[in-house]
Amino acid sequence: MASAAAPARSSLVLRALLLLAAAVAGALSDPTPLQDFCVVDPQAAELACKPQSAVVDDDFFSRAIASAASTANPFGVNSTRATVATFPGLNTLGVSITRVDLAPGGLNPPHSHPRASELVMVLRGEVMVGFTSGANRLYSKVVRENELFIVPRGLQHFQLNTGAGDAVFVAMFDSQSPGVVTPTFAMFATKPAMPMEVLTKTFLMGEDEVSAMKSKFAGF
Amino acid sequence: MASAAAPARSSLVLRALLLLAAAVAGALSDPTPLQDFCVVDPQAAELACKPQSAVVDDDFFSRAIASAASTANPFGVNSTRATVATFPGLNTLGVSITRVDLAPGGLNPPHSHPRASELVMVLRGEVMVGFTSGANRLYSKVVRENELFIVPRGLQHFQLNTGAGDAVFVAMFDSQSPGVVTPTFAMFATKPAMPMEVLTKTFLMGEDEVSAMKSKFAGF
Amino acid sequence: MASAAAPARSSLVLRALLLLAAAVAGALSDPTPLQDFCVVDPQAAELACKPQSAVVDDDFFSRAIASAASTANPFGVNSTRATVATFPGLNTLGVSITRVDLAPGGLNPPHSHPRASELVMVLRGEVMVGFTSGANRLYSKVVRENELFIVPRGLQHFQLNTGAGDAVFVAMFDSQSPGVVTPTFAMFATKPAMPMEVLTKTFLMGEDEVSAMKSKFAGF
Amino acid sequence: MASAAAPARSSLVLRALLLLAAAVAGALSDPTPLQDFCVVDPQAAELACKPQSAVVDDDFFSRAIASAASTANPFGVNSTRATVATFPGLNTLGVSITRVDLAPGGLNPPHSHPRASELVMVLRGEVMVGFTSGANRLYSKVVRENELFIVPRGLQHFQLNTGAGDAVFVAMFDSQSPGVVTPTFAMFATKPAMPMEVLTKTFLMGEDEVSAMKSKFAGF
Amino acid sequence: MASAAAPARSSLVLRALLLLAAAVAGALSDPTPLQDFCVVDPQAAELACKPQSAVVDDDFFSRAIASAASTANPFGVNSTRATVATFPGLNTLGVSITRVDLAPGGLNPPHSHPRASELVMVLRGEVMVGFTSGANRLYSKVVRENELFIVPRGLQHFQLNTGAGDAVFVAMFDSQSPGVVTPTFAMFATKPAMPMEVLTKTFLMGEDEVSAMKSKFAGF
Amino acid sequence: MASAAAPARSSLVLRALLLLAAAVAGALSDPTPLQDFCVVDPQAAELACKPQSAVVDDDFFSRAIASAASTANPFGVNSTRATVATFPGLNTLGVSITRVDLAPGGLNPPHSHPRASELVMVLRGEVMVGFTSGANRLYSKVVRENELFIVPRGLQHFQLNTGAGDAVFVAMFDSQSPGVVTPTFAMFATKPAMPMEVLTKTFLMGEDEVSAMKSKFAGF
Repeated sequence: MASAAAPARSSLVLRALLLLAAAVAGALSDPTPLQDFCVVDPQAAELACKPQSAVVDDDFFSRAIASAASTANPFGVNSTRATVATFPGLNTLGVSITRVDLAPGGLNPPHSHPRASELVMVLRGEVMVGFTSGANRLYSKVVRENELFIVPRGLQHFQLNTGAGDAVFVAMFDSQSPGVVTPTFAMFATKPAMPMEVLTKTFLMGEDEVSAMKSKFAGF
Repeated sequence: MASAAAPARSSLVLRALLLLAAAVAGALSDPTPLQDFCVVDPQAAELACKPQSAVVDDDFFSRAIASAASTANPFGVNSTRATVATFPGLNTLGVSITRVDLAPGGLNPPHSHPRASELVMVLRGEVMVGFTSGANRLYSKVVRENELFIVPRGLQHFQLNTGAGDAVFVAMFDSQSPGVVTPTFAMFATKPAMPMEVLTKTFLMGEDEVSAMKSKFAGF
Repeated sequence: MASAAAPARSSLVLRALLLLAAAVAGALSDPTPLQDFCVVDPQAAELACKPQSAVVDDDFFSRAIASAASTANPFGVNSTRATVATFPGLNTLGVSITRVDLAPGGLNPPHSHPRASELVMVLRGEVMVGFTSGANRLYSKVVRENELFIVPRGLQHFQLNTGAGDAVFVAMFDSQSPGVVTPTFAMFATKPAMPMEVLTKTFLMGEDEVSAMKSKFAGF
Repeated sequence: MASAAAPARSSLVLRALLLLAAAVAGALSDPTPLQDFCVVDPQAAELACKPQSAVVDDDFFSRAIASAASTANPFGVNSTRATVATFPGLNTLGVSITRVDLAPGGLNPPHSHPRASELVMVLRGEVMVGFTSGANRLYSKVVRENELFIVPRGLQHFQLNTGAGDAVFVAMFDSQSPGVVTPTFAMFATKPAMPMEVLTKTFLMGEDEVSAMKSKFAGF
Repeated sequence: MASAAAPARSSLVLRALLLLAAAVAGALSDPTPLQDFCVVDPQAAELACKPQSAVVDDDFFSRAIASAASTANPFGVNSTRATVATFPGLNTLGVSITRVDLAPGGLNPPHSHPRASELVMVLRGEVMVGFTSGANRLYSKVVRENELFIVPRGLQHFQLNTGAGDAVFVAMFDSQSPGVVTPTFAMFATKPAMPMEVLTKTFLMGEDEVSAMKSKFAGF
Repeated sequence: MASAAAPARSSLVLRALLLLAAAVAGALSDPTPLQDFCVVDPQAAELACKPQSAVVDDDFFSRAIASAASTANPFGVNSTRATVATFPGLNTLGVSITRVDLAPGGLNPPHSHPRASELVMVLRGEVMVGFTSGANRLYSKVVRENELFIVPRGLQHFQLNTGAGDAVFVAMFDSQSPGVVTPTFAMFATKPAMPMEVLTKTFLMGEDEVSAMKSKFAGF
């Protein structure tokens, strides 16, 4: 009896589900532009399309992330972005990429990208990658050469070089302009300064402690 | 002279224009579902559409944010969200709303929403609202009854009750599910715990200081 | 036993499915711009981004809907919109808001918004809000202070002050520019006039009746 | 003089440009699904994808609008939609089409589509097509065989047979499910009935007139 | 038995459902612009919005595809597009249409549209329409007057006149600018020429054969 | 003179601007899901979200493309995709990646992706990458380690190993499911077979030549 009844009920639920599935449509849609491409002219007005006749092979090619950048800084990290300034053909195509070099022990400090998911691929070394969900669950892995890790859109994440030598990874974004928010900088290194009352209450600490903290970030 | 000056000014305008053209792209497209509505059934399977015949007037109505919530906590803040659980007709319609009560001196600590812009409207009292841009510029205002403040998608922001009495505001989102990232919690209160090395390097402080910090957030 | 177990397992799968359906939703998809923000310059060319260096705190703040507007008109209604003209920071952020004042008995006549859903929140008084679905089913509720009502995108709806005193509500939209279509105006008050034959056939009435109707709307 | 005039003209062009930039935003993004196609199974659960192995040539073919439908009704109009029920391959592909037959003098009464623009192509006869903008400006043309007329998304429009014989046109939509709102039905023929007070105030007429009007639409 | 069978069937349905859920995502979201319309001025700068005051009825009307075009060419085909140049009101509205005339035996050779699905409606004659899925399955039908065939976005398709006389069909797109890729031209008729090594390896043939092939396409 | 020249130059810039404005529309909108993530369960129903409590660190990590695949085939190429089957956390996040191994002289034959742009990064060796625009202009470059090349959405492209040794590159997509169309297979290796008349007319060759061609592709 139960098994006879099940299909009927199930079929109602399925119908609801299917209608829902149809209704929700959208999230994964990857929209398309009105032209095959829109190459910006780096010499001229930023982001304007070159006329098609002026577009050349090199516009679709870039060495922007081919070289390592110095990691001689307090965090032992350096990010090199391929942007339309160095890669004019990227414009309007919905993707971008950043190369990150990490000294041994180097940290790409916790940050988030307001406008993109981030697919991490390690090129050299050993990198711990982690992100925190909205429920404050930490997901992390040590990632090695040619291995992948995915960070959902807008969530806070970090990359730490846990290997003995230098490490390099690329971060690929589903946006030409992912943006970045680094909470420590967005609190301790703003212009104008974040009100003291906001910081003491946010970190549940005294003004002296906050001032000490701010002085560390003053140079950035 | 005038004609010589014109190109320069024009080039500034062009730059602005181009930035605009890029910025507006997509931002404003508001996609639509495949049905007039898809009301979820709170008693049954979460998020499934009710059959149209079962949809009632009350599905499009909600008292979810009509009452104040207690602000008796260390931050002096309480957020009440209208979700599909309490407002089934919201489903698939691309908007949602949260009511925030603030005790005098209460702080809604710095956080960001991965999937929505936030339009703040103060209903009672006096609230300082501020956000930090990707360039770490702080924009803030004291906002009073029936005044508005807008926080761009994914950027870190806070709300502080700067008035003498209680304050109440609503935050409206262009997403049914804006999500939330609170950096202090996403660093000091994660499960499992954030690696100590990440925290000491992020905050440029010692393990003792980090441990003291973590103990403050242990209860949340 | 198997058939008893089936529903349980099935219900887990269904839940997963529903979560998925929600996740893909999208609808839900709320697209993002290429910059943190694009503030328009109200003094200059409409809708052009200001250079970041010229953006100020006040750009993200607005008093546009802080004051009541006169309801001394035949419908007893007045709508005050917060647009980029009065709230330059709104530009490209995908949300907007309108304040509607209603005299006792005042009516915001049936209309639709081509480009947004509308979340209604009553600030004062008692307002009957209703919309008609594509199947011509009327959904309505009397909504009071701090209560909510949702109108799906593009559907025809009205708001009627059913209370003894003045009423005020805000309508929040998931578009910077929701647009508006008011059928009575779009039929009886167009320039040039709607052909008489269209009106008599639409309303199944004679030319005299149509002319009488048009004269009532001539002043708008 | 010329250089003095230039700014003025330039500023007009800029304004147009900026309006354009705003207008194109999003409008043109044509999102894509996660599969080549998702054919629904008309015999089974509505809107579920068939397994690829069960998909046949006929799924992408339809005679749904090949035949005329009777126009023997008060409006002299009949609309035949190609939906996933009669054209299973349409599902998820973002387009749909409706055939409208009009008797001499027949009227497709003013209505709007909440989720699509409408491209009209007349196949036979002579049809006046018109729409009203948000500013209540009426745009209309008499359209003949193989001529086109475009109706923007969500705006109210009508089609009237102004020729001597029958007329046929197709309406193509950029949505699988454009939806429809017909104001006269959405006011005079709802279930439950629209409150009398809303109707008298909307049409600025007495209860008797409204009742007479409602009785004309009672049969629909 | 029934309960044993149920899971199997249920799992098929689930799979279908899940594929559906994925597939519908996005496909169906139809974004909206920031204005009712943005009519381009064909006399002036391409794609700029006219001021609303300059917009006329004719902007929304077009005879662009009303006349047959000559099919006196090797393929016996001619495509006539309604673009914003000939149909200024189309701009930003997310749809476009092309008329294709085919001589007896005429072929619209295999091609794909990078930015749109294509809904084919035959106006006269008999046309075989076919497309190849990503799994290289060919779906085709002979389509006659007022019959429909749908080609999914981005897939390769052809139209062949299989009737005794001329044939005409319209192709409707869910994009203002669907784009086109014709593989034979994109391989044998490029400027500069495709490297010989790419062509010999692509077609698994010798240089002489490739050269012969290229010479046939040299005129296009 | 200067002021006479200005309009001309300005008009070029305007044209570029307008093309840009059109092109950026939509292209850049990166939609967002309704949840932080939706991890699929590879053991269970394909594409269903796991309950959050069952999500583990490994779900966001993948070795799917860490190893080379055999290039012992006529084209000397092998593509390894990271899909939700091998990388469950990718689901709904709008990105994916493929590793392509090329033997010396190996060719990834001309193909297109219906639902994504492709950002190529060479990991080892020397690869000529080229694509053909809709105007049949060929853009190509020899790309070496850590260099980039971008292929616009839906356009036909190829990769040829022009170096002495093996080559490896990754292709990153702004879609979880970019799809693929390979014209030679989509013409010579379909099931059922493409009609002979379509092939002879497409390639302007005789039936014997077509049959010879088809026999070469029979094994694929």
